[in-house]
Amino acid sequence: VSDLSCPGFRFAGAAGGIKKKAGLDVGLIVADQPVAAAAVFTQNRVKAAPVLLSQKALKDSRGKLQAVVVNAGNANACTGKQGMIDARAMAAQAASIAGCRADQVLVASTGVIGQPLPMDRVTAGITAAGAALGEHGFAAFSQAILTTDRGPKTAVRTVKIGRAEATLVGCTKGAGMIAPNMATTLSFVATDASVPPASLDRALRRAALPTFNAIAVDGDTSTNDTLAILASARGAKVSTAKDLAKLTDALTDLLDDLAHQLMADGEGVHHVVTIEIRGAATDKAARAIALRIATSPLVKTAIAGGDPNWGRILCAVGNAGVPLRPERLDVFLDDHQLVAAGQVAPGHDEARAAAIMKQAAYSMTIDLHGGRAGARYLACDLSHEYVSINADYRS
Amino acid sequence: VSDLSCPGFRFAGAAGGIKKKAGLDVGLIVADQPVAAAAVFTQNRVKAAPVLLSQKALKDSRGKLQAVVVNAGNANACTGKQGMIDARAMAAQAASIAGCRADQVLVASTGVIGQPLPMDRVTAGITAAGAALGEHGFAAFSQAILTTDRGPKTAVRTVKIGRAEATLVGCTKGAGMIAPNMATTLSFVATDASVPPASLDRALRRAALPTFNAIAVDGDTSTNDTLAILASARGAKVSTAKDLAKLTDALTDLLDDLAHQLMADGEGVHHVVTIEIRGAATDKAARAIALRIATSPLVKTAIAGGDPNWGRILCAVGNAGVPLRPERLDVFLDDHQLVAAGQVAPGHDEARAAAIMKQAAYSMTIDLHGGRAGARYLACDLSHEYVSINADYRS
Repeated sequence: VSDLSCPGFRFAGAAGGIKKKAGLDVGLIVADQPVAAAAVFTQNRVKAAPVLLSQKALKDSRGKLQAVVVNAGNANACTGKQGMIDARAMAAQAASIAGCRADQVLVASTGVIGQPLPMDRVTAGITAAGAALGEHGFAAFSQAILTTDRGPKTAVRTVKIGRAEATLVGCTKGAGMIAPNMATTLSFVATDASVPPASLDRALRRAALPTFNAIAVDGDTSTNDTLAILASARGAKVSTAKDLAKLTDALTDLLDDLAHQLMADGEGVHHVVTIEIRGAATDKAARAIALRIATSPLVKTAIAGGDPNWGRILCAVGNAGVPLRPERLDVFLDDHQLVAAGQVAPGHDEARAAAIMKQAAYSMTIDLHGGRAGARYLACDLSHEYVSINADYRS
Repeated sequence: VSDLSCPGFRFAGAAGGIKKKAGLDVGLIVADQPVAAAAVFTQNRVKAAPVLLSQKALKDSRGKLQAVVVNAGNANACTGKQGMIDARAMAAQAASIAGCRADQVLVASTGVIGQPLPMDRVTAGITAAGAALGEHGFAAFSQAILTTDRGPKTAVRTVKIGRAEATLVGCTKGAGMIAPNMATTLSFVATDASVPPASLDRALRRAALPTFNAIAVDGDTSTNDTLAILASARGAKVSTAKDLAKLTDALTDLLDDLAHQLMADGEGVHHVVTIEIRGAATDKAARAIALRIATSPLVKTAIAGGDPNWGRILCAVGNAGVPLRPERLDVFLDDHQLVAAGQVAPGHDEARAAAIMKQAAYSMTIDLHGGRAGARYLACDLSHEYVSINADYRS
């Protein structure tokens, strides 16, 4: 199960010379025939050509794709009409390799913004990837989508559905939003489950919410973010709502694993903090507060400095635009209580709190005592390296 | 006019020993009698005791105050019931000095969060300030409200209304939100204009919108932010709508001056960038986009590095949650065009753009070509010093 393959798919990674530094930069996934597919994309109003094209492909094909083609090193974003022409050419070439229609191909790009794709290199890379396709090519594919990541990030899950098993293999790239040029987050999952497109779409959206939609490095969303799944129908059949829940759980678990890897891999990230919001009136309110904490520069620099400055946490909570009773707020780091009922907790110990914040991973829990809803978010530190990477790049 | 005095008021600054480092830390403004007053406060849901008390005072007194008392070094925030008791004690002592009721006093505090006010020192400081009150005490007052600011920030304006003149003297503190412990922004204006409380309130809200409500260092709002104005009615009388517009213009100009000083004084700030949004459908949409650019860590690190990375600017524009046509976007740095119709502008010159970004102050203009509304915002860089100051403080 853990050899990074998935029945019904072939994968490849190839070097087209698009990235400045040598390495794989074109990835290809090809299914044996058109299969159920679903994807979620960036919510940025400025969308790269491949995102617009892929959204149309999923719609036109009614959720049946046969191939995914990815390039790293150039985002094909803010490239005008030529950008769409180039994205279409990538789809057409991948379709010819897979033996399907161009609207059955998902295209994704990541890298520098505002420069035309070097199509000679992209074309050569796709040709090479087509020649390299194989059942065991997922590791190469997972490398070909990387930009400034320190290494590939993959995960595998199996889940029993009825009497059969389904396998899910996934990979991601992006190093959060930390890397230069906005580090698009691209994630791809292949599964052999047999599941209709509409159900797959529901499973993906549900699984993305507490995972890839609940991580924040700096709160920016790129022009290219894409999370896609294809299901070959060679394994367990998803028939009932209970079956779909099992598949969704396995997918959520896989995406959670990938999201943690994404956060931890970011250059300049030393601490991954799980923000837990409890006692909110609604899930939406809880998520708004979690996001505000996770993106507050003052909280993030406190995380970087290992400073248990709970005033900044309360301040971020109060800035979320959510009605709340400040005099009810409790704040914990792991199991140590810093704030009780909006004031410093009687047993609060600065040294103990500081020791917790030295860990590479810990939790920050805020209880609003205002309801039964909650949310979870992954946050990280705002460090000197973040500034160096993003300020000094290109200059 | 520019000797920092204002007919009808006495001012003082005194040293109570509340701040760790020696210096003035208690400020007092006393009017000859109850006068028209208005204030705007933090929109954070977690409000410090002095903010809650001052909001009540303005309401109870129907906008007629006679004194302002401020301490620096301790924010009296997240201090529970004792915090409100202490804020009331500050108001009572100032009222006794001014000879007015306690609900005719505005109280403001700034400094560390979550620690009880050292009331013996606060009381001693207010006593000393009362003894030091004088017509020429504004400079001392402007120093007494500082925390980590590098120096006092004051401004004076005079405006002719009818045949008479009105003077406005103002001061601010905060160093943006850059300094440790969230650097409350406190600002106070005294004027001798004769204007009813309701008109003064309208003038203040209108003047605050494009000035103190349009600056962003990191997008966080403290628990204590306060901007207040008192009008002694010793100078020009504001009778007509035209008169009020003149006063509002002068106040806007004064606050704009103070806001620029606030941004430029921030430790870790090397560049103050005026974000101009044009061609928006509504002012609200324009402000949302300006705020998003001004708080984007990727834009702010690009400003720090002097990197004309226009992809990050477009990305921030797209992340503002405002409907727009990406293919219409124009981007300028000063008068140099980087982006035309969503793509790199034909005449774009990286070296020229980088030279513009070396300046201490420059403008970044985004034209959406989608309407006639606009907004202006002041932004700054996210620098290594910001991280150092906020991460390494206390640790």
